[in-house]
Amino acid sequence: MRETFRAELGTLTDDLARAARLAGQMMTNASTALSQADLGLAELVISQEGDIKALCDDMDQRCVKLLVLQAPVATDLRMVVAAMHAVGDVQRMCNLAQHIAKIARMKHPAVPIPDEVRPVFARMGVLATSLAQDAAAAIENQDPLSAHRLAQADDEVDALRRRIFRILFSEDWSHGVEPAVDAALIGRYYERFADHAVAIARQVSFLVTGSPHER
Amino acid sequence: MRETFRAELGTLTDDLARAARLAGQMMTNASTALSQADLGLAELVISQEGDIKALCDDMDQRCVKLLVLQAPVATDLRMVVAAMHAVGDVQRMCNLAQHIAKIARMKHPAVPIPDEVRPVFARMGVLATSLAQDAAAAIENQDPLSAHRLAQADDEVDALRRRIFRILFSEDWSHGVEPAVDAALIGRYYERFADHAVAIARQVSFLVTGSPHER
Repeated sequence: MRETFRAELGTLTDDLARAARLAGQMMTNASTALSQADLGLAELVISQEGDIKALCDDMDQRCVKLLVLQAPVATDLRMVVAAMHAVGDVQRMCNLAQHIAKIARMKHPAVPIPDEVRPVFARMGVLATSLAQDAAAAIENQDPLSAHRLAQADDEVDALRRRIFRILFSEDWSHGVEPAVDAALIGRYYERFADHAVAIARQVSFLVTGSPHER
Repeated sequence: MRETFRAELGTLTDDLARAARLAGQMMTNASTALSQADLGLAELVISQEGDIKALCDDMDQRCVKLLVLQAPVATDLRMVVAAMHAVGDVQRMCNLAQHIAKIARMKHPAVPIPDEVRPVFARMGVLATSLAQDAAAAIENQDPLSAHRLAQADDEVDALRRRIFRILFSEDWSHGVEPAVDAALIGRYYERFADHAVAIARQVSFLVTGSPHER
């Protein structure tokens, strides 16, 4: 019974890590679609909606099945509960990448991001993707250290978002309302993506250390 | 054993419904703080952060405890899992009300919302609060009909958000970048608040009908 549980939980966490990597890949593609007005890449990210939902629904059901059939206790139970939370986080990460891809598609063939904010978003894109990969590694290795690293990267994302506001609200901003609104929303989507990656890492940290990962 | 489970689950769902109503109340206060530049109300909403977190952490732990000590199966298990998801939704709803209150506080004593968009936000505030109350009623009564009503209200919130964009991007907009960015973000927060209320209702619908509530 316990061996079956271990095996199924192992497959589940592997799939979860793969899904977190997929979220990172989608964010990379969405970021490129945005900065290069690449309609094909934007469409690719948006088209993955059904697959992501099916994947996450499947993982969610496998969590419930593990609870029903294996009735795990103690650490085993906590791992299934953590996995259920992480599935929700991964799904939101994918959705947020799609929101960015949808802005790229809506504004195509224009590049919706003026030059002043482009390097900030480029950095946010790199950080977001790397956060998703760190979250995946945290799931695979059950490594609370990378949870700490994630929190640092998350702080940098927050700082970048504040920098965007300073640029948008400065007197030098000459692009008017629409690109400013797009930039504010895109910044919000990156920030939430990072928050979810950190939430996954906190779950892992909680599992390993037994206490909530406070910052 | 089963009676204990029923009793504890009953208390938990009562608390969950109360928390959903609290989220609605916080959104009402945040909306008033925003439209009337009421700093006291904004501070009140923001000050509830610790209480909300403690409340949701407590409900989350009680869900896990129910799983560990009672090892529920079938519908009982699904109810605990649904409650766990709903706790996450309620916590996010409270956080989103706080985001709106923080904008009201940051811009005080100014009213951050220009006249053109004020009626739209007033309607969004009413809808959001009523969605939270409907979600609470759905939890209490396990009523999938109100889930359908929630979905309709959610559609109206989406339509209002599109109307905001039309106002912000029209040639008549004379308030510049900063109020437009605030309005876009506030619209996003109301929309997400509504999404979470609908997610709770879907969980309830799933429990009652046994199949996911598709729109």
